[in-house]
Amino acid sequence: MTPPRRGRFITFEGGEGGGKSTQIKRLAEWLEARGIAVTTTREPGGTEGAERIRALLVAGEVAAWQPMSEALLHYAARADHVARVVAPALASGRWVLCDRFADSTVAYQGYGHGLGRARIVRLHALVLGRFKPDLTFIFDLAVDKGLARAASRAGDETRYERMAASFHARVRRGFRAIARAEPRRCVLLDAGQDIETIGRAVQAALVRRRWIGA
Amino acid sequence: MTPPRRGRFITFEGGEGGGKSTQIKRLAEWLEARGIAVTTTREPGGTEGAERIRALLVAGEVAAWQPMSEALLHYAARADHVARVVAPALASGRWVLCDRFADSTVAYQGYGHGLGRARIVRLHALVLGRFKPDLTFIFDLAVDKGLARAASRAGDETRYERMAASFHARVRRGFRAIARAEPRRCVLLDAGQDIETIGRAVQAALVRRRWIGA
Repeated sequence: MTPPRRGRFITFEGGEGGGKSTQIKRLAEWLEARGIAVTTTREPGGTEGAERIRALLVAGEVAAWQPMSEALLHYAARADHVARVVAPALASGRWVLCDRFADSTVAYQGYGHGLGRARIVRLHALVLGRFKPDLTFIFDLAVDKGLARAASRAGDETRYERMAASFHARVRRGFRAIARAEPRRCVLLDAGQDIETIGRAVQAALVRRRWIGA
Repeated sequence: MTPPRRGRFITFEGGEGGGKSTQIKRLAEWLEARGIAVTTTREPGGTEGAERIRALLVAGEVAAWQPMSEALLHYAARADHVARVVAPALASGRWVLCDRFADSTVAYQGYGHGLGRARIVRLHALVLGRFKPDLTFIFDLAVDKGLARAASRAGDETRYERMAASFHARVRRGFRAIARAEPRRCVLLDAGQDIETIGRAVQAALVRRRWIGA
């Protein structure tokens, strides 16, 4: 028996309120309709342990954590998530669609909190070596629009949303810098467009890579 | 006004049941009787956030965490503890006596879980740079004796104690290797001796360094 061909690892990144989860759901349905087995997951979280770490990060006081502690907590959750969910799914041939991954740590802790891109890159290499997504969609949206959309959602996972607008502006700059630095891996999407238009752009990126027939 | 002279950072390390906390209490009293302001603290923990991380680490299933996640959680707690408690206390001239610190991560995750010393050293440099204790006491005890002592204590912080004896043997080897590698910083103590004898050895190490008069 030949081992299954490794699945594709696709991440969805960007600031608050960009509509990532809507597009993940649509892409999963579109891929499944084409016979591809899909795992959808999210960070921080995706395993029992990582969801416990998530609870420390996404609720509570804005200043609850030192920036470096925050980056380490995200990577503690990520190491667990990759080892127990993402890597086994990819190895079994499933495609993995993940809501946020390492680029969020670069953008939020590296740019937003000012730890710098280089320290997060070193942390990534230490924890995960060369493991990275095959394709990343970056949902780009004006900060005020994104925060207004995020605020309209229910829930108490608002710690990051409550950070200053200047923080979110740095996060946005961070994501745009990542997209510029890795144009082969990253697709920058205007998240102000309607859901159908964005959905077609997502699908087109897969067709363009010849991962899916037109 | 001249700024206060930086305090001394002294850590207490070793496997389970070695009697570290008893000696920390005794040394704090001995130093305070000599007019030295002392902060006693512990890891993982020592701040509100770090104690929340501690709760994830010291209770629950033995296999709850990937070894790398475990190391990252310890450093997330440590970064918070150093920034909010240890470094400010030292800067104000207080001496800090800490129950476990970075050597525990080298011994438990590096040696015990097999992540290797080098990866923990890289993680330390990334998070804390060159920050390290001025003096470290390593309480060395046969694994079976230490686990028997630890088991006689109450409490539910038993996740590490429930790990295999072979794990604890690797941890002990790790601590002994650290003591050999850094003989100026580390004092290896035979924790099988009585409390008075160990207490005198602890005090003698400070006198020998001329930190305290004989």
